Amino acid sequence: MTAVLSALAKPPCAFPAQSRVLFALVPREKEIFLPDLDLSNPGAFDNADCIWPDVLPTRAEPAAWRALLDAIRPDVIVSAWRTPPLPVDWITGGETNSGAGAGGPAGGGDGVPCPLRYVCHLTGTVRQKVPRVFLERGGLVTNWGGQVAAQVAEHALLLALASLRRAPAWMGSAGASSAGKASALKTDTQTLFNRRVGIHGCGGVARTLAALLEPFTRDSGGIACFSAGVPDEVIRAAGMRPAGSLARLFAGKEILFECEALTPVNEQSVDAATLAQLPDGALFVNVARGQLVDEAALLHEVRSGRLQAALDVLAIEPVPANSPWRTLPGAIWSPHIAGPTSDMMPRIGSVAMQNLASYLAGRPLSHLVSLEAYDRAT
Amino acid sequence: MTAVLSALAKPPCAFPAQSRVLFALVPREKEIFLPDLDLSNPGAFDNADCIWPDVLPTRAEPAAWRALLDAIRPDVIVSAWRTPPLPVDWITGGETNSGAGAGGPAGGGDGVPCPLRYVCHLTGTVRQKVPRVFLERGGLVTNWGGQVAAQVAEHALLLALASLRRAPAWMGSAGASSAGKASALKTDTQTLFNRRVGIHGCGGVARTLAALLEPFTRDSGGIACFSAGVPDEVIRAAGMRPAGSLARLFAGKEILFECEALTPVNEQSVDAATLAQLPDGALFVNVARGQLVDEAALLHEVRSGRLQAALDVLAIEPVPANSPWRTLPGAIWSPHIAGPTSDMMPRIGSVAMQNLASYLAGRPLSHLVSLEAYDRAT
Repeated sequence: MTAVLSALAKPPCAFPAQSRVLFALVPREKEIFLPDLDLSNPGAFDNADCIWPDVLPTRAEPAAWRALLDAIRPDVIVSAWRTPPLPVDWITGGETNSGAGAGGPAGGGDGVPCPLRYVCHLTGTVRQKVPRVFLERGGLVTNWGGQVAAQVAEHALLLALASLRRAPAWMGSAGASSAGKASALKTDTQTLFNRRVGIHGCGGVARTLAALLEPFTRDSGGIACFSAGVPDEVIRAAGMRPAGSLARLFAGKEILFECEALTPVNEQSVDAATLAQLPDGALFVNVARGQLVDEAALLHEVRSGRLQAALDVLAIEPVPANSPWRTLPGAIWSPHIAGPTSDMMPRIGSVAMQNLASYLAGRPLSHLVSLEAYDRAT
Repeated sequence: MTAVLSALAKPPCAFPAQSRVLFALVPREKEIFLPDLDLSNPGAFDNADCIWPDVLPTRAEPAAWRALLDAIRPDVIVSAWRTPPLPVDWITGGETNSGAGAGGPAGGGDGVPCPLRYVCHLTGTVRQKVPRVFLERGGLVTNWGGQVAAQVAEHALLLALASLRRAPAWMGSAGASSAGKASALKTDTQTLFNRRVGIHGCGGVARTLAALLEPFTRDSGGIACFSAGVPDEVIRAAGMRPAGSLARLFAGKEILFECEALTPVNEQSVDAATLAQLPDGALFVNVARGQLVDEAALLHEVRSGRLQAALDVLAIEPVPANSPWRTLPGAIWSPHIAGPTSDMMPRIGSVAMQNLASYLAGRPLSHLVSLEAYDRAT
């Protein structure tokens, strides 16, 4: 049976006999991720009540959100960017973390066991949505996992090529107005072929990026890589050359790609001393997190003309309208659009719905978020 | 012995005992291509008189150019973009083509044998510089040959990625002014991974491009290719899938790269019927020649919003300031900068100087222009 109900107006009056799935999405998220899902006939979810609230409370309406959760008591929540955070005490039922038993994944409010067993998150990081205690108690969380790594790597390649070719000078209205300007810049373009390249990071983005760069670097010694704690043999297996340290990774590289996961340890690890290892004219590309970089130090290097930068991420987002990065010569800035591309969204939604169907049928899930991945996410 | 002389002011008075090499370059070309060549000590060319005119006549000064040629009577000319065309009658000495003997490569003015044996051209096409009769008579011509193919392929990849990511909306001053605009466009970006891709052409650019695209297409059937007269086995050896015809190449391709050499036969071969084979929303990328395309038909498809275009070349160049291509939504335009990049120029100059040294020492030359290549160039 499937129900689309006005949850707050008509709360269910009895504990459900089958799984209750709360689709905590706004209409735009439904449109982007689940364009083909027919609400009146979800089909695959016959063994569940699929509940779509008429209006999803916002982050600014915690009481309404809590009331919705208490009224529906979902076993499963399908979440995305606009889903408000799950309250810790709704998960624990007021118990302390240490007092949680080993039996169930979560407690319930006011001593009633929390029914939630699975958060099917459509997008990336879940740290702002799901309290850590939910995973600690064995709750299941899935997200888009590594599906977007390829698009992030693809965007890193675009940023590098566009920067080397001085694309802002000829692309869009800025350059289109003057052929003479573009012609002058023709004398300052660079190729990616046979350049000294380094990648900071050895996750999915770094590995895909290494594959995309391979045709450019195969005749010039390949790609250097460093990621704290990643063994040399893992780096070699990914087709890269271990650099040994962050300083040695940066030393002498004409193009340096920042693809590392942010952790408390590596925050601002790309500082003035690290950047100083790059030679004059080098290009620094960041598709990871702005917080990995001492942005004041990078700004100094780009303003002076010593380094180029191409940044999809900055520490403060959305990037303020008066941010120097938006218009700085020598820098390319994109508004955190590395991944996924729009055309990937329905595929990501489809994989999530396969996960939901698997959960309801008792089959294993893909793209499960581990506690380690939870802690590394930002 | 080496001489840098004011050729028109002080013409040589006797036929030289050794090779006379005329560097018919403007200072900017010297600076771009031969930055390290020391005029006072060329070193490698001890067995030649290297003659650098103080002022190179322009294309608009044919009489001064002819006088310079008659005065210097070079065995070798080093030429580039600004070198005026070699007069046909200076090559033939007034003889008709059919009357040319088989003995020497060229005749001389007024019955005097033309001394020119070798044109060491620093850049690409030589058709506007060297009459065909010079090659017919066995004259040697070298140019940058396939050295720039990799950069042209690289630019084709940049144009495709930039178009799929709607880069003009966020790159440069056009997009930098509005985060909201970029965010809205975020919902309309596309990936190059696993797209249906075709390449028109099977020369150096197409082959390098196929290698660059391989990581994007390896899981989705690879890359289709068609080039008139190129056997299927050659296409397969280049890692692509023979399409069989131009119409079948275009049929159903989401991204179509135009990399074919222009010949009288294939001019405007990409016409309305060919473009109609592309599906709605497809992207057409041209890094070859504008004349291959019926630009009115392409403009119609892009204006209607059915197709996207990313063009480094147009039939009329320099592209007029009021050309619709410069500002058309759905089109990216770059000012014929695909190849080579600026940083390749000194390498190209260096290879040409190696060729010059080889010629003077009687060794074989690289990047020789064949009559077939001459006829295919534009």
